[in-house]
Amino acid sequence: MLKPEIISRVQGTIGKEAVLTAKEDLTTYSYDGTTTWTHMPDVVVLPTTTGQVSQILKLANENLIPVTPRGAGTNVSGGSIPIKGGIVLCTTRMNRILEINKGNLVATVEPGVVLQDFNLALAKQGLFYPPDPQSFLGCTIGGTVAENAGGPYGVKYGVTKQYVLGLEVVLASGEVVRLGGVTAKNRTGYELVMLFTGSEGTLGMITKITLRLLPMPLAQKSMLAVFDDMVAAGGAVSSILAGGIVPAKIEFLDNWFLRRIEELNPMGLPTEAGAIVLLQSDGNPAAVEAETERILDICRKTGAKEARVAKDDAEALKLWRARSAGFAAIFSSAPTIVAEDVTVPRDKVAPFINRLEEIGKKYDVPVRVLGHAGDGNIHPSIPTDIKDREHFERANRAMEEIFEAALSFDGVLSGEHGIGLEKKRFLKRAMDPVAIEIMKKIKAILDPNHILNPGKIWEE
Amino acid sequence: MLKPEIISRVQGTIGKEAVLTAKEDLTTYSYDGTTTWTHMPDVVVLPTTTGQVSQILKLANENLIPVTPRGAGTNVSGGSIPIKGGIVLCTTRMNRILEINKGNLVATVEPGVVLQDFNLALAKQGLFYPPDPQSFLGCTIGGTVAENAGGPYGVKYGVTKQYVLGLEVVLASGEVVRLGGVTAKNRTGYELVMLFTGSEGTLGMITKITLRLLPMPLAQKSMLAVFDDMVAAGGAVSSILAGGIVPAKIEFLDNWFLRRIEELNPMGLPTEAGAIVLLQSDGNPAAVEAETERILDICRKTGAKEARVAKDDAEALKLWRARSAGFAAIFSSAPTIVAEDVTVPRDKVAPFINRLEEIGKKYDVPVRVLGHAGDGNIHPSIPTDIKDREHFERANRAMEEIFEAALSFDGVLSGEHGIGLEKKRFLKRAMDPVAIEIMKKIKAILDPNHILNPGKIWEE
Repeated sequence: MLKPEIISRVQGTIGKEAVLTAKEDLTTYSYDGTTTWTHMPDVVVLPTTTGQVSQILKLANENLIPVTPRGAGTNVSGGSIPIKGGIVLCTTRMNRILEINKGNLVATVEPGVVLQDFNLALAKQGLFYPPDPQSFLGCTIGGTVAENAGGPYGVKYGVTKQYVLGLEVVLASGEVVRLGGVTAKNRTGYELVMLFTGSEGTLGMITKITLRLLPMPLAQKSMLAVFDDMVAAGGAVSSILAGGIVPAKIEFLDNWFLRRIEELNPMGLPTEAGAIVLLQSDGNPAAVEAETERILDICRKTGAKEARVAKDDAEALKLWRARSAGFAAIFSSAPTIVAEDVTVPRDKVAPFINRLEEIGKKYDVPVRVLGHAGDGNIHPSIPTDIKDREHFERANRAMEEIFEAALSFDGVLSGEHGIGLEKKRFLKRAMDPVAIEIMKKIKAILDPNHILNPGKIWEE
Repeated sequence: MLKPEIISRVQGTIGKEAVLTAKEDLTTYSYDGTTTWTHMPDVVVLPTTTGQVSQILKLANENLIPVTPRGAGTNVSGGSIPIKGGIVLCTTRMNRILEINKGNLVATVEPGVVLQDFNLALAKQGLFYPPDPQSFLGCTIGGTVAENAGGPYGVKYGVTKQYVLGLEVVLASGEVVRLGGVTAKNRTGYELVMLFTGSEGTLGMITKITLRLLPMPLAQKSMLAVFDDMVAAGGAVSSILAGGIVPAKIEFLDNWFLRRIEELNPMGLPTEAGAIVLLQSDGNPAAVEAETERILDICRKTGAKEARVAKDDAEALKLWRARSAGFAAIFSSAPTIVAEDVTVPRDKVAPFINRLEEIGKKYDVPVRVLGHAGDGNIHPSIPTDIKDREHFERANRAMEEIFEAALSFDGVLSGEHGIGLEKKRFLKRAMDPVAIEIMKKIKAILDPNHILNPGKIWEE
């Protein structure tokens, strides 16, 4: 527990109204998008300026108080859970879009800007920022940078790190550092911008972000392809990529997800299908036309029972809403969900799906599958109940074997969610021990007292 | 000078034929693409395996011998010059393409593979690797990763760092570490792959590289637009980007370059023009057609006297050869060239070109300009002679003012060449001192004896 004197000093620094200590408030900040982790902070602090962040960190560093940075808490690896208590430093009041420069195709924002608010502001100027984690309606841009978030657009447009040009970061000491800048290219020293991007709040607190933008594509079309099973769907995806086409999005959902989403919100999904693939093509209108035809043709040749363009914008929107509902669909289906984010090489999606089915059978647990098929980034989920220890442990053993299977396919533990609390016990098997040592040494020089987001990424 | 005993041990490690000590051999490795720096190594070592690199680094580390990693030496910031003598560790014999996986759109190569050899191997499979420094005919992929090289394709496709998925690196201690992997997305721990990318050989020796690939675009068209001066050309570039078009390439050359290139190799360039802009559109054939029309229309509306598509492949090739000849054109024009790589926000290209003209007049030196206009990455060059101290110093003072001007436009010292020796004296003005301290601390944990490429990036 923090001493009352410390809480008084925090209140003195940023004002009483920006400091939460009531139990019902703290509870709100004790969990994130995962369902297996929870821990109460001692205090939640809501700064509005870089100077305030600096003062809070200086105080925390001098008094060895754990600080967990947090945006909207939509994280799905436990990254924003204050597992050691202390301070939750929440960016949601630092939510100004500071500049949108259309001529330079660059924007600068505070970390608490909600991704969808940013998207709407950009759309007014015909601009486009591709990274689209499925929490986009609520997640903050600071969180997406700290986690290097991906999303369906990743297949064509890459992930968050491909768009971060500059950062302002407050270090654990309270020192403020400016990294990178506002130019499209920059070769001034080491890639420190990239070091902080994806560091899960363990190296510093991001207080300003400069992002590269693109012009809004002139046209887009959404497609639906229906398959007998996920393995066939995975095969179609490989064929599309090997055919020299990189669509804007390639997502897939299995039969369970189709039925569950339809049950929650009837929208006419093909619930009889073993699996569906949703695709989007974007760019010049003529190119979209031609690419769409080729994609549908490949889908049909690789076994799609049906492959067609969404008949209008309303249907396209509905299909993508169905995909976005995947998270809610699975997390509302059982008391506890063991959900993961493994990624395999793109030519191994089909055999990996096969392995998932085998593992589900072996442990007698259902493995539900959806994900970013075009990146090989699969989200297998196992519904369970943490209170039913036997089932919960079986689910965890199954997921452990899924991790092992991904690694044996030259895959990785996480494609876009990060390690956080969820996957840290697997890190040693997934990362070269020399690389883990380098990470720990970098952590030690930037945060020698280990106050920033302690307990995450690796086991102590 | 290295002790003969050390040279014997090096020879014993990797074989006599892989160790060069004759003066005429060493001279070849004493310079790079710059003309202002030169220093003789004591010995040049040409390993063929990671194991050999590890043994050499271990020996060097134990005996505190400077090691300068080097590929083809096409570097233009002095990065591969052995400024402290010692060992040049040259990768040119580690030149195998280990895998090209079309289904996963990924390739793995050794660092000494020449970029053009890689391009040719990819083309046979309909694949494409965009980063295209203008030294592509000779430069090695290891060098492009160490320098995070860019090139004309940067405007649409980004630079080298956007393609590096995995690295094998030998640390100064001789330890081998594997970073990243072969998947399109990877969120396992800190972005250590990015830390080594662009670190200019100061943090480790890269011995294996995994790169993301794209399918070869189905069509491409090259365009030429002729302007009265560079300021007008710069204005056209901003208008194209603000018009929502991101062409594959947007390059420009000033009148001096046009005349000089034509003089060296007559190819019918418009030598009367104040400046030309070369553009390329690529992708789906119909999209290329439409985009080309829009680009030419914008060029005409923003003052182009002539704007047209290259009449055939031969002319397109000729135009891009002219652009590639820019480096030879300037470096063959005077005994010494002070050539730079500043980058400004893309909406400030035209006013920055204006400033370059003013600075040239102020110091009474010619400032020749070409560059990657679509990225704001300009290469101003001043022909001079290092033996004419007065003129050489005037040229350097002018270039210093060019750096200051770039910084005042929110620009950066280097867009794609790196800091190396050329720009290290300016680093303190261009980078937050806290960031420089972080770089030095990272260097100290990875290379505590400072044996790797000493004397580069920052002043001791």
